[in-house]
Amino acid sequence: MQSERTNLDRLFAPTSVAVVGASVATDKAGHQALLALGSFRGDVFPINPKAEEIAGRRVFPSLKSLGRPVDLALFALPAAACPAAVAEAIECGCGGGLIVGGGFAESGPEGARIQDQLEAACATSPFRLLGPNTAGFVNKDLSLTASFLLGADRIPAGSIAVVAQSAGICLTVSFLLAKLGYGASLAVGLGNAMNVDASDVLEFVASQPTTRAIALHLEGLKHGRRLFETLKRVTPKKPVVVLTVGRSDIGEFAQSHTGNLMGSYAVRTSALRQAGAVVVDSTEELVAATALLSQHRLAPKLRPGVGVLTAQGGAGLLVLDRLKHRGVTVPALADATRERIERELPPMTFLRNPVDTGRPPPSFPAVLEALTEDPAIDMTLVYAIHEPAVLRAEEVLPAVAERVKKPIVFATVGPPGDTDATCERLRSAGIYVAGSPEELADAAIALSADASAQFRLARGGAKPTAELGVPVSLGYDEPAAKQVLDGIGIPTPRRVVCSSHEEARDALRRLTKPVVAKIVAREILHKTEVGGVVLGIHDESGMNAALAKLDAIPVESARRYLIEEAAPSGLELIVGAVRDATFGPTLMVGLGGTVAEALRDTASRLAPITEAEAEEMLDELRASALLGGWRGSPALDRAAVARVLVSLGAFLSAHPALSEVEINPLRVYPQGVLALDALLR
Amino acid sequence: MQSERTNLDRLFAPTSVAVVGASVATDKAGHQALLALGSFRGDVFPINPKAEEIAGRRVFPSLKSLGRPVDLALFALPAAACPAAVAEAIECGCGGGLIVGGGFAESGPEGARIQDQLEAACATSPFRLLGPNTAGFVNKDLSLTASFLLGADRIPAGSIAVVAQSAGICLTVSFLLAKLGYGASLAVGLGNAMNVDASDVLEFVASQPTTRAIALHLEGLKHGRRLFETLKRVTPKKPVVVLTVGRSDIGEFAQSHTGNLMGSYAVRTSALRQAGAVVVDSTEELVAATALLSQHRLAPKLRPGVGVLTAQGGAGLLVLDRLKHRGVTVPALADATRERIERELPPMTFLRNPVDTGRPPPSFPAVLEALTEDPAIDMTLVYAIHEPAVLRAEEVLPAVAERVKKPIVFATVGPPGDTDATCERLRSAGIYVAGSPEELADAAIALSADASAQFRLARGGAKPTAELGVPVSLGYDEPAAKQVLDGIGIPTPRRVVCSSHEEARDALRRLTKPVVAKIVAREILHKTEVGGVVLGIHDESGMNAALAKLDAIPVESARRYLIEEAAPSGLELIVGAVRDATFGPTLMVGLGGTVAEALRDTASRLAPITEAEAEEMLDELRASALLGGWRGSPALDRAAVARVLVSLGAFLSAHPALSEVEINPLRVYPQGVLALDALLR
Repeated sequence: MQSERTNLDRLFAPTSVAVVGASVATDKAGHQALLALGSFRGDVFPINPKAEEIAGRRVFPSLKSLGRPVDLALFALPAAACPAAVAEAIECGCGGGLIVGGGFAESGPEGARIQDQLEAACATSPFRLLGPNTAGFVNKDLSLTASFLLGADRIPAGSIAVVAQSAGICLTVSFLLAKLGYGASLAVGLGNAMNVDASDVLEFVASQPTTRAIALHLEGLKHGRRLFETLKRVTPKKPVVVLTVGRSDIGEFAQSHTGNLMGSYAVRTSALRQAGAVVVDSTEELVAATALLSQHRLAPKLRPGVGVLTAQGGAGLLVLDRLKHRGVTVPALADATRERIERELPPMTFLRNPVDTGRPPPSFPAVLEALTEDPAIDMTLVYAIHEPAVLRAEEVLPAVAERVKKPIVFATVGPPGDTDATCERLRSAGIYVAGSPEELADAAIALSADASAQFRLARGGAKPTAELGVPVSLGYDEPAAKQVLDGIGIPTPRRVVCSSHEEARDALRRLTKPVVAKIVAREILHKTEVGGVVLGIHDESGMNAALAKLDAIPVESARRYLIEEAAPSGLELIVGAVRDATFGPTLMVGLGGTVAEALRDTASRLAPITEAEAEEMLDELRASALLGGWRGSPALDRAAVARVLVSLGAFLSAHPALSEVEINPLRVYPQGVLALDALLR
Repeated sequence: MQSERTNLDRLFAPTSVAVVGASVATDKAGHQALLALGSFRGDVFPINPKAEEIAGRRVFPSLKSLGRPVDLALFALPAAACPAAVAEAIECGCGGGLIVGGGFAESGPEGARIQDQLEAACATSPFRLLGPNTAGFVNKDLSLTASFLLGADRIPAGSIAVVAQSAGICLTVSFLLAKLGYGASLAVGLGNAMNVDASDVLEFVASQPTTRAIALHLEGLKHGRRLFETLKRVTPKKPVVVLTVGRSDIGEFAQSHTGNLMGSYAVRTSALRQAGAVVVDSTEELVAATALLSQHRLAPKLRPGVGVLTAQGGAGLLVLDRLKHRGVTVPALADATRERIERELPPMTFLRNPVDTGRPPPSFPAVLEALTEDPAIDMTLVYAIHEPAVLRAEEVLPAVAERVKKPIVFATVGPPGDTDATCERLRSAGIYVAGSPEELADAAIALSADASAQFRLARGGAKPTAELGVPVSLGYDEPAAKQVLDGIGIPTPRRVVCSSHEEARDALRRLTKPVVAKIVAREILHKTEVGGVVLGIHDESGMNAALAKLDAIPVESARRYLIEEAAPSGLELIVGAVRDATFGPTLMVGLGGTVAEALRDTASRLAPITEAEAEEMLDELRASALLGGWRGSPALDRAAVARVLVSLGAFLSAHPALSEVEINPLRVYPQGVLALDALLR
């Protein structure tokens, strides 16, 4: 780990850089990369066996000929030439490298083979290789442009780290940040992320002093669980905002791009949130939220309160509508606050939250201060059309924010160009400025999401449990699966497994009527489809008829009968734990039944989880209202459902051999739950 | 109508303007409004009984003293003084006026009383009054700033009409348009929209030659049906993009703002779409979509095909993901197109749709032309990071668009300032330029939404039907309601209404078993709650038991029995037609049952509708998959559901006395449907 850490530093913060494949041809990447290194403060070595001098620098024939290990080697070579060049760099003791070109896993089998060679070489050495298929990175701390992309050197320096799967998005995000007046500390395109992935770069920027917030762009993910663990460590220190694709089916194009397979968007985004990241839907939101979080951060809190102060009622409505739609808390103000505001404003204005002042009166600063000081308010949004004659925002807002010690975020619009100076002065004074009512609301949405995620993270996750005292074997029939559930504390109906009619009739006598009779035989996977389930058995004649029916089903293995107490009707959920290919143990819960399945109303978390996290999964369901006592029916036992989720998650996490546990349906009652059927794999 | 039309022209395109309440005090609205009229080309008359000259203009003591009727009077007066001033303007034959201040319906009962007086005065004259509680308007055709807002005169001239409920949003939208490089033809704040509402302004701008697209902002709506009809006439001529608030509960603040009550957001937005408008979620989207539609419009088409050409794969993924998520068609390319493109690009690039060229090669224009010429493509999106050395977008894109005669929309980002000239040249050449991958996708989403809405509008709506041959009376019990459904062709279960046990037993003999017995009595509204429904009656003993049970329910009116054939199980929908307070007859459909109700999965349309519109309602349901043959079950009879919706819509539209018809549940089968219960009001 120490050498990994050290070599990440050598890769991203080198003191010396070599360009392997430096070229005299000015249109080649091997030339442009060298030019881009012009402002770098460290040593630069062009490597080319056939040239003497390029762009005024002495050229060396090979890495070996340098007689010292450079920290970073840029490989501007065709794919096929890369494995040998990387091997030489490793041999020389270089810290890291990056491969500028494509032609690897993203391009087909031949490229994949070359990438496999590179991966094998890196796996057995501390050498860290960025890419392949990346345009490189920019470290503004060192004025280092380790990239052949034109314009990469024009990214302004600042306090935001941009970590993007692809070079194009790295530049796009960096330029959009620049347009908002923000700069980068480090900007990296991961490309195929073969040896250096998002987790590695997060580790680096987490300890880079200039970085105050991190913008992360992801396509597919090879090591999801590792990213999850990394984010849990990084996000409490520095806010991370993530944009990831894959809400719709774009797999084929995605794979052609960086060779990554897309996983489930829902699982990925819940895992990212669970690890403390803020997830957004577009590059604009990514840029806005990261810029915002580089200036303001709320203390961890589940539901921060947002104050809204507006000089234009229509804009206030747009802000309020968006905040409420996204579940942000816009609290009522304390009586004392309202009295303070009432003294400052004419009675025609709206004095609740939002506070609508109309055209800013001289008392605007006092109103802002009163609102922001309210104990229920953690941050205040201010909207006012640019009218310097009545409001000098660049003076008022920083002064109030300084006194009240809570974030104040501003949005304004005005005639073309008029607002630039005000916005720039506010940004310099530490106040984020949005460009519209909705962007203002989005600022509160992002700060709330961050504070809420950090609150949940600080509350602590579930500890991994030791293996539970339940035997794991190959192949579970229904009785065996239910026995496992019993063992981990998930209630199932009372039942008896019987080998004969006599045992079945005896079971009927001992159980509460009515009972259900089900066939149990190894080769029968879908009992219902073969008529292997008989409901509503009240007496011995019913039992005899049921057994006759079950006996009519042809089976070759031993025939047994599961006699089980019928469960009362109730709301049906489906609860599952699966081992995700990239994220490992993952929990999901949703409404059971055909209708709900079609409506795709589910929530997911990486396991293990705590009861609080399980309850939050239930909160996320659109069907959450059904659990809370819908239309006069009694409230259902959410805590019991939460305990089932916790148990399942702990169980799957503790048993690596298990790939899936599904309870469908889990019936939920005012008191307790019952798992009516279960599947283990 | 002719005088309304004429007076709208006098109001919004006046040749003379009077400022009633013109003031010598420079900080008063009555002074600022006069200054803002400085650039107006027509006559300007300050009115003030106590002044001689203001801002260099001769002052007149009263409107009457002018000796001629001005087209437009600006009233810069306290609310209480307005009714008399408006009366004088009407008496003088002025065309229209606008009231700059607040203090009317939005402020409480006293203001509402004053507004009522104004409304009554206008109702009996052709005088058109904008506001009250508005900041006025700007008509850039005439360099007319009929507004006291500072900066309103700085809105640049252009081809977009901005029609906003509130003055603040009018300015916000106009300034955001200016930031994108677009200007306004007319910009209006409606305020309380007492006498001049959105429909009126739409009528005016529909025939204003400079207006090419319309941005509409709505809060509440008094005359929804009228706006619906107006939009149906206007949108085929000029695209209309609408932003409206109210997704969440913001009613109290909304009412304080412009005195309007919020209706249902879902009904409002579906009605707007049905009338051919494009509905968006934010001012940014409003501004972007209107600017776009002022430059490009697709021919009406249900599902236009979008081509995507990108120089950066990561951006292409973001675009594709967003397009697919929003249901935009990204068609496969013809073989001939792919062959053309293959000849132009190296094999490593992705040659389907999207086409990913990598860093733009010299063949980029040829690839763009091939893609755009594909018969399945109606418009092309192009993304490329600013790199003028390899792509001169301002030359390539207009040339190809000109040759191919299809819209091409571009997005680019680059180092700060570098892209400005390119964007400006592209805009001047008629090409819309977006600022990010997602804004590029949003452009296709907006153009598709417009083309699709216009296709549906052109297909023709349902004709209002004459009153159908069904008696409408007060009070319907279940048998009466079902008889009405029978009369309009909606299938119900076979049944007999019986007055005695003997009749009930006779009915049992004639109907297919099992049957259901229900109590019918005027005072019983919720039969199930009093035990008034007995299911599963197979024989006479069952019937006798059922009747005994029904007889045990105490009733005072005549007791009857509804004996009805039990319906087979099937998917349950809820179908309703209600008379909305502002939009009139409105249809809704959703999944039936408690679960679905909690999930709020419904679609709505203004009635009457055609079968095609009814099918589109079903497409909109998340539960749509359940109708199409979910998980191997047979496809259900969508057409029969559509016919029910059409019938209900026609019925409610033709019977003004009816306020509501609800069928819950409507059971849907592979062939046909059955209305199991119905409610008429």
